[in-house]
Amino acid sequence: MAPRELDEHNITEAVIERFANAPDPRVKAVCTSLVKYLHDFVREVRPTEEEWGFAIDFLTRTGKICDGNRQEFILLSDTLGVSTLVDSINFPVQPGVTKSTVLGPFWTQEMPDQKLGDDIHGKMKGEPCYVFGSLKSSNGTPLANAQFDVWHSDDDGFYDVQQMEKMGGPAGRGRFHTDKDGKFWFWTIKPTCYPVPTDGPVGEMLRGQGRHPMRPAHLHFIFYADGHRKLVTHIFDPTDKYIDGDAVFGVKESLIREYKEHAPGAAPDGKKMDVPYATINYDFVMAKEG
Amino acid sequence: MAPRELDEHNITEAVIERFANAPDPRVKAVCTSLVKYLHDFVREVRPTEEEWGFAIDFLTRTGKICDGNRQEFILLSDTLGVSTLVDSINFPVQPGVTKSTVLGPFWTQEMPDQKLGDDIHGKMKGEPCYVFGSLKSSNGTPLANAQFDVWHSDDDGFYDVQQMEKMGGPAGRGRFHTDKDGKFWFWTIKPTCYPVPTDGPVGEMLRGQGRHPMRPAHLHFIFYADGHRKLVTHIFDPTDKYIDGDAVFGVKESLIREYKEHAPGAAPDGKKMDVPYATINYDFVMAKEG
Repeated sequence: MAPRELDEHNITEAVIERFANAPDPRVKAVCTSLVKYLHDFVREVRPTEEEWGFAIDFLTRTGKICDGNRQEFILLSDTLGVSTLVDSINFPVQPGVTKSTVLGPFWTQEMPDQKLGDDIHGKMKGEPCYVFGSLKSSNGTPLANAQFDVWHSDDDGFYDVQQMEKMGGPAGRGRFHTDKDGKFWFWTIKPTCYPVPTDGPVGEMLRGQGRHPMRPAHLHFIFYADGHRKLVTHIFDPTDKYIDGDAVFGVKESLIREYKEHAPGAAPDGKKMDVPYATINYDFVMAKEG
Repeated sequence: MAPRELDEHNITEAVIERFANAPDPRVKAVCTSLVKYLHDFVREVRPTEEEWGFAIDFLTRTGKICDGNRQEFILLSDTLGVSTLVDSINFPVQPGVTKSTVLGPFWTQEMPDQKLGDDIHGKMKGEPCYVFGSLKSSNGTPLANAQFDVWHSDDDGFYDVQQMEKMGGPAGRGRFHTDKDGKFWFWTIKPTCYPVPTDGPVGEMLRGQGRHPMRPAHLHFIFYADGHRKLVTHIFDPTDKYIDGDAVFGVKESLIREYKEHAPGAAPDGKKMDVPYATINYDFVMAKEG
């Protein structure tokens, strides 16, 4: 039985002792670890009552601001590097397999179905961009007719869901399938860098930490293929000024790919362009399940 | 500059590096420590994506359920022993000084003013109880005319604020002042044990941890006196079956005090009691400021 006289030296043991009859051993292990690290953190920083009250209020406000279109606790996890950490634990590097990165808050369950070659930019403004590549299994087999989702921000740094009135519908967003050879190609616009939302508790935290809220320009992808682990990833622009300062720590060297700039003329798919345009190519490789 | 290839081994350093320009050194130190312990926790438990998603959802729901009458994050802090830890850090033991303990969620800013000798039980049911004692400074000087707040639960284990309709106003709650000799005395009812609220995320956590939600019976006090540190404390009933299992880890040996049971007759203040009643006596000692 724990002593009645609890202080900073014996409280941790006393709390953990209460989990003795937890029905699920995983819950018991996670809660035990949580209390150990949480108490160690508190013992190290030795918060005043006012500081602990601020922490309680910060967490409360973080919960309160969440709604169907905003998940501030995911943003908090992202900006503290925890999302990247959880991702790296669950998707360890496999030679030859495309690396995963954070999902971010702007993926949507509903994605407009698109055909290869379609232009998905909708009412977004920006430089036209032709995106093409291929999808293979780690054993080299092309992955035919595999579904993939694409989404990205516009020239002003906003996603369609952040400006639904202006966009009038999905823009810079689509659900495709690779062709019989595992190839894909489509048109959109080149994304730019943008700030994560800064009008809530996470913005307050970033200012307190003396950090900028910017993410370097990127295209989001999720690939799905039978017998393979879902691949959630980005392709980053190496010329972006924030490429080494991603506010959510998502950048990986192997996910950086240069855009090629082209004068007006015939594009790779034969489309006649009367303005300059960019192309970007990436060949994705998925890990086998298990 | 942090490497672009972030994984579980270098992400912590990369996040902490971002705090280099934090304007306030205390914020920088707290955030650095937070990231270190939070990442170590995640590295130890190695959550699946689903588990991390559950954690995000749990925290979101904990924020959502908070309102003017309920603070679920404080309850989470209480039930994980963090409130007691923060209290023990801020109020280290001083010989001869009454120990502090957690505030709990039922103190209210507005307290009905009472005179010494008043009965504060209002519409609460329970055994009549005469509470008396004294307040001194750690140097032995009686603290005259010092304000103190009292609040407690009723025979059913509820505070007045949890049953406002039934109580029709404050009950088991009052603001007094000690007399010219630092003495106090008042009537109320004997409190009983009660469960912390279990209909929210904290209740879900306690069930997952295989724990009961009960607090042993207690009277809450806050004493205020010029030149002294505010004293937030409880007096606990040693006969309560939960005395060694307080769900919020507030019990301290020196805060346990037996009630005396009395047959009907003349009470210590001369009041004629025609039913059995209890008395409890405690002499409180406050620490000098600084």
